Formats: sequence, structure tokens, C-alpha cells
Amino acid sequence: MSDAQVRVTFQPIDRAVFVLPGTSILEAAGRAGLSIDTPCGGSGTCGKCRVQIMDGAGEPVQAEREVFSEAELNDGWRLACQTVIRQEEIIRVPESSLFADQHQILEESKTQKEGKILPAIRKVYVELSAPTLEDDVPDLLRLEQKVGKFEIDLLLLRQIGRKLRASDFKGTAVLSDHRLVDFELGDTSSQCYAIAFDVGTTTMVGSLLDLCSGHQLAITSRMNPQISFGDDVLSRIRHSGSCPDCLDDLRQAVVDAIVKMTNTLCAEAKIRCEHIYQIAVAGNTTMEHLLCGIDPTPLGQIPFVPTYARGLVIPARDMGIPINHRGTAYVFPVIGGFVGGDTVAGMLATQLANKNSPVLMVDIGTNGEIVLANNGQIWAASTAAGPAFEGARISCGMRATRGAIEKVALDGDVRYSVIGDVSPIGLCGSGLIDLAAELLKHGIVSSQGRLLPPEELPALLSPPLKRRVRLDHEGHCQFILAERGSGQVNSPIVLTQRDVRELQLASGAIRGGVTTLLKNAGLQTKDLQAVLIAGGFGSFIRRSNAQRIGLLPADIDRHRIHYVGNVSLSGAKWALLSTAARDEAEELARRTQHVELSTNVNFQTEFTEALIFPTNVTV
Amino acid sequence: MSDAQVRVTFQPIDRAVFVLPGTSILEAAGRAGLSIDTPCGGSGTCGKCRVQIMDGAGEPVQAEREVFSEAELNDGWRLACQTVIRQEEIIRVPESSLFADQHQILEESKTQKEGKILPAIRKVYVELSAPTLEDDVPDLLRLEQKVGKFEIDLLLLRQIGRKLRASDFKGTAVLSDHRLVDFELGDTSSQCYAIAFDVGTTTMVGSLLDLCSGHQLAITSRMNPQISFGDDVLSRIRHSGSCPDCLDDLRQAVVDAIVKMTNTLCAEAKIRCEHIYQIAVAGNTTMEHLLCGIDPTPLGQIPFVPTYARGLVIPARDMGIPINHRGTAYVFPVIGGFVGGDTVAGMLATQLANKNSPVLMVDIGTNGEIVLANNGQIWAASTAAGPAFEGARISCGMRATRGAIEKVALDGDVRYSVIGDVSPIGLCGSGLIDLAAELLKHGIVSSQGRLLPPEELPALLSPPLKRRVRLDHEGHCQFILAERGSGQVNSPIVLTQRDVRELQLASGAIRGGVTTLLKNAGLQTKDLQAVLIAGGFGSFIRRSNAQRIGLLPADIDRHRIHYVGNVSLSGAKWALLSTAARDEAEELARRTQHVELSTNVNFQTEFTEALIFPTNVTV
Repeated sequence: MSDAQVRVTFQPIDRAVFVLPGTSILEAAGRAGLSIDTPCGGSGTCGKCRVQIMDGAGEPVQAEREVFSEAELNDGWRLACQTVIRQEEIIRVPESSLFADQHQILEESKTQKEGKILPAIRKVYVELSAPTLEDDVPDLLRLEQKVGKFEIDLLLLRQIGRKLRASDFKGTAVLSDHRLVDFELGDTSSQCYAIAFDVGTTTMVGSLLDLCSGHQLAITSRMNPQISFGDDVLSRIRHSGSCPDCLDDLRQAVVDAIVKMTNTLCAEAKIRCEHIYQIAVAGNTTMEHLLCGIDPTPLGQIPFVPTYARGLVIPARDMGIPINHRGTAYVFPVIGGFVGGDTVAGMLATQLANKNSPVLMVDIGTNGEIVLANNGQIWAASTAAGPAFEGARISCGMRATRGAIEKVALDGDVRYSVIGDVSPIGLCGSGLIDLAAELLKHGIVSSQGRLLPPEELPALLSPPLKRRVRLDHEGHCQFILAERGSGQVNSPIVLTQRDVRELQLASGAIRGGVTTLLKNAGLQTKDLQAVLIAGGFGSFIRRSNAQRIGLLPADIDRHRIHYVGNVSLSGAKWALLSTAARDEAEELARRTQHVELSTNVNFQTEFTEALIFPTNVTV
Repeated sequence: MSDAQVRVTFQPIDRAVFVLPGTSILEAAGRAGLSIDTPCGGSGTCGKCRVQIMDGAGEPVQAEREVFSEAELNDGWRLACQTVIRQEEIIRVPESSLFADQHQILEESKTQKEGKILPAIRKVYVELSAPTLEDDVPDLLRLEQKVGKFEIDLLLLRQIGRKLRASDFKGTAVLSDHRLVDFELGDTSSQCYAIAFDVGTTTMVGSLLDLCSGHQLAITSRMNPQISFGDDVLSRIRHSGSCPDCLDDLRQAVVDAIVKMTNTLCAEAKIRCEHIYQIAVAGNTTMEHLLCGIDPTPLGQIPFVPTYARGLVIPARDMGIPINHRGTAYVFPVIGGFVGGDTVAGMLATQLANKNSPVLMVDIGTNGEIVLANNGQIWAASTAAGPAFEGARISCGMRATRGAIEKVALDGDVRYSVIGDVSPIGLCGSGLIDLAAELLKHGIVSSQGRLLPPEELPALLSPPLKRRVRLDHEGHCQFILAERGSGQVNSPIVLTQRDVRELQLASGAIRGGVTTLLKNAGLQTKDLQAVLIAGGFGSFIRRSNAQRIGLLPADIDRHRIHYVGNVSLSGAKWALLSTAARDEAEELARRTQHVELSTNVNFQTEFTEALIFPTNVTV
């Protein structure tokens, strides 16, 4: 954790995260697992994302002055989409500011706090009577009389008699499902922790949970170090087979990251690794296979078959993860080669299959995972969007970090905002969508995706915008978005014709998949009760612009589109807090019908159609 | 296996054992797990132990001439108690010659042969269809569709995809309960083996089973090498705590013996160790604890509490036993500190708890384990008989091996028979009981156990017998039984006053335990439907003499006393052949009430009374 980061604590759920100053409250809340509702797409106009800064807020921006009264502003009320973190802060998020389905999650965890948390891990302090001739019950039965029947491994079996006698038959039994994990000296029942991991192709997030209270004690994220072996799953699958040690190199890289994140979380919460008894891992099918050291080669070849389907419970030490010696890793079940445990975890967290009318969930990332639930049936598919939304393969693309242009409007000239309020370094996914939508709207890009040369630009286009369209030294058209900040290379931040094509492919893949799934279920877009946009990236796109470029269907009311945040991490947490939730994840994975798009004739048609930007969109 | 041993195959059950020439058929049959009924105690008078030697029998003895017709003798009919093995032989044992409860066991295994063998280990050859886009079921689900749901460990999970593809999705799944043990290339379903071990304080026996047919393929035995650390359980418990490595030395010693026996059995049956997927171990509580490496110290101190009670399933490799890499060891449940898995296995094999009227089982060894079943209730106790019956602590004592006087009659002078028909080396347990009974009968030993000096001997005693009673150089009385064979030390084989005292203690401990259990259940000896004498030693004692010295109660009809042989080994075999039997063993152990004799006031009284040899016994 870099020194530059500051702690932000969200109330009333009492979750803390560390972020860089300059991060928007909206983003920080997302990292804490809170999805704040932003119907206006974070433009500061709807006033929905109200939060209260408890210890002195900075100057409000104009949008906030329009939404809040002077008294409210003085009380620290601000808009999460407009205000950035400046220092260590405590922020209260009222329930009315949360996305509807998150209410339910919060409700659930609040209920769990009052007794409904039933994790697989149990710690029970017991005071047993010492054996006598009148009560000569064997050691293990004596313990089982207090904590229920359990299994035990050979090493602990060899130690248990001595442990019981050394503690005068008083101590804390640790149970994992029906296995005895340890018998600890004294009452350690309040020291019971677990970590939920969301292992993405690009980003990994870990959340340390107190299994007694259900609270998150700390959260951390880092890049998946496998990126050095390839930035998408297919290149990693290829790499894994390219040398005898390559698979293990990939495995070791992600394990190393998990080890570091575990140590970071322990240090931050000031707890001992031995008191972490379980981790849950939700990742896409390839990430999960690689973490387990399972050869992913069949995932890269038709028919893209995973090794396992049901979730796995693996001794953490066999995976090289330094939690309690008998701790376990729960690896989420997968649905298909490209619909993995992260999607299952998302289905669990959003409870989308429990709605009465059709619900669609889309996780927009390098792979777009799409889930459709209707009337008890669930279909899932994945589509190779490519890394454009992550900023890769875009000439000036970058991830959504400090220095990235994340919001763009064309208004006579270019207006943009930069993450961290610094000079711009590049363009991230949400900025890319904004820019493309605006270029379409102003006729600078055609519906076919052609970036028009200066001589073909609309006559009414403002001169400053006209001046931004230039030909590069090879004669290709490009749009000059911004000059870079000082200290950067001297070339401007541009959008090229090739960038637009990458965006068309990425957007078309998602849109084609959505349409195919809907047709498959005999549904139309307008039937959808809700569209849930999952994933860290999804939370920052403007719905109207996503609809304008065709990434999301235009014929759905914008208020039915919800950002649900990192539901993969939320689902992994649920699985740790409740065995019933873990069972539900298994059931969801089992019930879901996997639709293979790569060979689906409908998809080919829909994809091709979706490559063309929609016309006549008024959003 | 020494070259001097010869193979004896018993029909129709098709079990082979290796024994030294000179071993009685009765003993060889016992080693093959067959308990031949010998109501006369092996004296050759009842004609019950009829067997047929299939390939040329030797000259019949007088007892056989009296039992069989000339035609029968020509057909190879002999008495198992009278005829010894001379060479490689095939011997048919008619069911009528078997102890009643063994009929049932045989019946069971015969039924099992026709499909009722349901071991925990299953091998299933499968031909799976390779995955296609239309059938993209994940690898493990594909396999589960054929063999049922299973768990899998991380290592196999990493290999299974490659194994399936290398074999073109055809091969043999090996399952242990609901765990996948391996996926073997080709059809290896007929190569499925397990070993049952009876781990005694003194002797270990291993039986290699074909899990497809239920047949025993080979059997081997050896001394428990822990003997070098002490000859009874208490001295081994003491040793285990006497140095930091002592427990592990004891563990390693018995594991080494199991490793050697496993290798011997594999070599003999010409099978590969990898095709052995399970072992079952029945031993007394201390032997099982030591084998598992569990500190037995609490077993040697009041209140003698075992660590575990339920049976254990332990990865064999964790125990250091070289069977299949994922093979398991089933260690029998125990009832108390001195009533162990061997007793539970015996209860399982004899089905004594399923009888309608009271049944008593006694395993006479260093510890005498006593089980009483009546009307659905089961009680068990153990009593420290000491090693007298094993030949230890007896001045000229020895185990029942070649050169041991195993049968004695006083008939004007001494008549005796020696195992292997060689010159005598010493006196084994059955010979000791015979001799004591005869000395009592002839008034050479008083009912108080005093070996009478020459001047107090009955006047009518034959002069040759009189001459055998002498005083040693310290003035103590002794009875000269025999001169030793040539090549031996020049002192004769004698019985001393101290030997008689040892026998009184051993016999009194058993008898006191039996009486205490009966009183505890409100029963009398005459109520007993059957008395089952278990264990290798038990099979060779003469019932009448055991009754005369008070080891067995005199007021029970001799025909209700049955030798059931090594039922501990039989029970261990059952557990391998049938999960239902294994469950039954757990249930028997759970249901049995443990009666602690060492602090039982009734026992103290009964033991003291039982130290006096009974008078007026006419058997």
C-alpha cells in the first residue's frame, strides 16, 4: 500500500478502503463494495448520489450548489460523482443513494450481523471436563459432544491429545464445514477471518472479512502480474503451453500476488495470517484454472471445455497460500470455458435469478459476460470484447487511473475531466465511449465508423472542433483530444481510425451477445425489467453514451440500467459468510444454460449488425 | 517367505496360505481364515474336523482309522486336527466341518461373489465421448455422468484433463468412497486389491484380497518388531514417552513391518503395489495409536483414555505405506483404552450381537478382551492376562512355533506332542494349560496352585511321574517335562512353582473378567448360548483342560464352546469388501458399553476367587 494513499471509511457499514487523493467518492465507494446509484451516469445532474462527508468537506462544485441547500452543504452533503477524496475521510452513504439491489445485499448483511452469518468456518470456545474413570470418553468424542461431529487429519490427530491436556481441556475449536482445523489455546473465538478474492484478467481485488461481524476490515487491489505473459486470457493460455514451466510460471505469478495481498490485508487490519481460515476466489474460468495450476489448453481450443464445473475446496497450503495451515480455498464453480466463477459470484450477489421479470447482467471487460434470467431459467454467454475498454490496443489508451481522461463532452470545443484532476496522460474506457458518442453526434464519425477527413466534415461543425481533425504523417485521419501534461512526451492525445474500429469490435461483440441471448429466450429489449452493469469498468460509463454507440440497447429506459459494481467480489464475500450462499452459487452454476456464441449462427449475424453504430438515437 | 514353506490351498473358497511342513491342517486352515470346528479340542475323538486332501494323502493315524471308512480314507478324508501338511497340497473343507458362525461368513462371501461385494474401492472402465461444441460438458462432469459424483484432490485435478485426452477419453476410473483415486490408461478394472491387517502386540497378519472376487490371494504373518521395545502394551506405552524419538521409533517399526508384508504379498500374488487401493487395520487400541503415531501416554494412565473412538480413514502415504499414491488406510474404531479395533473386528466377523440369546467372546492373549452380547446390548472389557499364554514369563515358555510342546497328557508317565514333530525346545501356551490341568488332576499341583514337594505327592501317583518332581539347586519344586532336543542346552524343559503362579494370574484375570461381565448383565454361565474363543492362540487350547484350570467356566457344555480363529483379521477383510460391514463396525463400536475392570470392585473379588484352581471339575 503506497504512502500516498489515504483511508476512507464508509458508514454506516463501517468499511474502509485506501485510495489515492483525487479519486472520486463514487469510485472509492465502489472499491468498498458499495454501488452508489448514478442514473445520470455521473454527470452531476440527477442528485441521486448524495453522501455526507463527516469531518469537513471542501468547497462544493456548481452542480452540488444546484442540488443542495446551503444548510446541507454546510452539513457536508456532496455528490459522490462530483467530489474527490482529498484526505483521510469518513463518509456516510444513505440507503437512498444506493442501487436498489445493493439495498438488499446490505439488508442481508445487516441481518447476518444479528445472527444470520453462518460461515463454513466456526470457532467455538469450549471448557471440557477432564476425563475420569467415571467419564472415560475418548478425547475426540469429548470435543464432539460440545462442537458436533467432525473429521480430523493425521497431523492434528497426533497433536490433539497433547493440545487438550496442555490447555487443561479448555480452548477454541476451529471448524471448517465438518473438519477440525485446530484447537487453539485460550478463547480466540473473536479472531476469525477470511479473504474474498476477485481475480480478474487485469485486476485483482482482495477483501478481508471478520467472520464474526461480517464486516470488511480492509480491501486491497493490484494488477494481475500475469499481464507480463499476455493481456488477455487467450494469450495466457497460449503461453501456458509454450514451455514446460510456463504453466507453473503463470500459476506462481498469481499466487505471489495473492500472497502479497494477504500480507497487506493482515498488516493493515493488524491480524495474524493463521487466523485466516478460508479464502474464496471468483475469477473467470481461465484465471481459476491457472490459479489452481490446471492446464488451460483445452480452454483455448474448440470446444473450449473446462476441467471442472462444480466449485473446489482445496487446502490453501497446497496452493501455496499462507493462511492457517489447515485453511482452505473455495474456488467458485464455472459455467463454461468463458463464463466463469466471477459471473457465478455476480449472479449470487445480484440475486438476478430471483426476480420475476427478465433481468440482464453484463460485465463489460476484456471478455464480456452476459447473463439473462427469466422465469426461473438462466442463460449465460461470453463474448470476446477485447481489451479496448481497458485502454489496451487504443493508441492513447490507458487504464482508469490517475491522469486518464475519463469523461469527454464536445461543446463548441472539447471539454474533459481527468482522474485525479491532473494533466492528462491518456484516455480510459469511459472517456473513449464518451468521445466516440460525441463524435458520432457531431457527425465527425459516420455510423459505419469512419472518421471523416477534414473535407467531409459537416459544414456546421464549430471551427475549434474542425481544427482537431487532422491527417497523420501516413495520411490517416485522427482527432486531437488534448495535449499531454507537462513532463510527458510531446505528442498529443488522439483518437485514430484504428481506435474507432477497435471500439466497434468491442462494442459489437457485447451488443451482439446481448441480442443473441434475448432472441434465444424469445425476448426483446423492452421486456427487460433491469439491465445490471457489473464490473469495475462498467460503473464509470455514461449510460446515454453507451447507448449512443450501441454498446447498450437504445430502446430501454435509462433508469432501468443499473451499475452494480464489483459483484464478483461481493459474491465471493457472501460465499465466505454463508454456506447457504455457497450452496446457492453451486446451484446457480448448475442451473445456468451455457450458450456458446463463437459458433452460434445468430450471433454472427447480430455481431455484424452491431458493428454499425446506431443511427437516430436520442438519449 | 522362507523357502521351507509350502503352499496349501483350501477349497471351495480358493484361499492359499504358506506354512511350514509339519503344521497341522487345523492351524493352516486357521491361517487361511477358516475356523474348523473341533468340539473335542483337537484330540481326534469327535470326528468333526473332516477335510479331504485332494492330491494323495499320507498314512492315516489311528484316530482317523476309527472315524473314517477305508473308502473314505482312500478318497483322502482325514481329520484336520490329526494330520499335518507334508507338501504343497489342495484341501477341501466341507461346510459341515466349519464352526457354525463361519458358515455364515462363507455364505456371505459366496453371495458377495455373485454381486454383493460392495467395497469402498470401485474400478470402472469407461469409454467417454470426446467433447464437441454440441456436447461441451466439462471434463469432470463428463466422467461423473458415468461413475457418479466424486471429489478430487488438487494433484489429480491438475492431471485429469491430460489423462483423459492421452487415453482418448477411455480408461479406468478408480473411486474410493466418493473420491476419485485415479484414472488409469486402458481397462484395469480387474486389478483391484486391498490388504487386511491384524496388528497384534506380538503377531501381525496380512491378507491380500482381490476386491473383484472377494478371494484371498495371499497371506503372510510376522512378529511385531515393536517387541524389541517391550513385550506388552504397557511397556511400549512407557517406552514411547521415554525419549523424544521413541514414539516415532515404535511407529516406524510397525510401519516397516507393514511395508515388508505388503511387498511380500505383492510378490507372492504377482501384483503391483499401485493396484492396492486400501488397507484395513484392526489392532488393539495401543497398537492402532502407535501405528498412527498418536502419543499413547494417556492409555497408560488412569483413566486410560484413547484419542479417537470412531474409525479413521487416513491417506496411506501419510502413514508411510507404499500402496497406491491415493490409497487409504481404514483404522478400526476402538471402544476403550484396552478394548480396541481388533475386538470390534471380531464382533463384526462373528456377528455375535445378532444372536437372540447371550453370547460371550473371549480373545485370550496378553490382554484378554471379553465381549458379552445379550438382547441387543453389548458390553466389553479387557483384563491384563499377561504374556504367560504367549510363552513369556514362563521359565521354559515359547511361542507356538516349531519345537514347542503344544499338547501334554500324563498317563502313567508324560506324553506330549511337538509342533513340527521335532525334538522339543520349550512349552507353548496350550501345552502349559494341558500340563497344569494334568498336574491338578493327578494331585501334583494343589487347588491353591502349590507344586507339591516329593514328600507330599499322592501315594498312588505312578513312580515315573513321582520321579519328575524335583527340587532345584535353590530348593524350589519343579516338574521335569522333557529333555530338550539334541543341539539344545543340556537342561531339561521344566515347569516351576513360579510358572504355575503366572498361569494362575493369567487365567484368573480372564475368568474374573468373564464373571464380572456376566454379573453386570444379570446372567449366569449356564445362560450362555455360545462361548466364542477368538485369536490364534485360542484355537489350540483344549476346552476340557481350559475348564479344568478355571480359564473357562466349568458349568457350560463343552459343545457350546467354539473356536472362531483370527476373527480380527476376518473382520478387517469384511470392512474392505463391504462399506455396509465397515458401517456396521462403527455402529458396533458406538453401541458397545465399555466396562472398566481395573477399578471395578466386583472384578477385584472375582479375580481373587479365580486365582484358586477350581476343584471337583469333571470334564
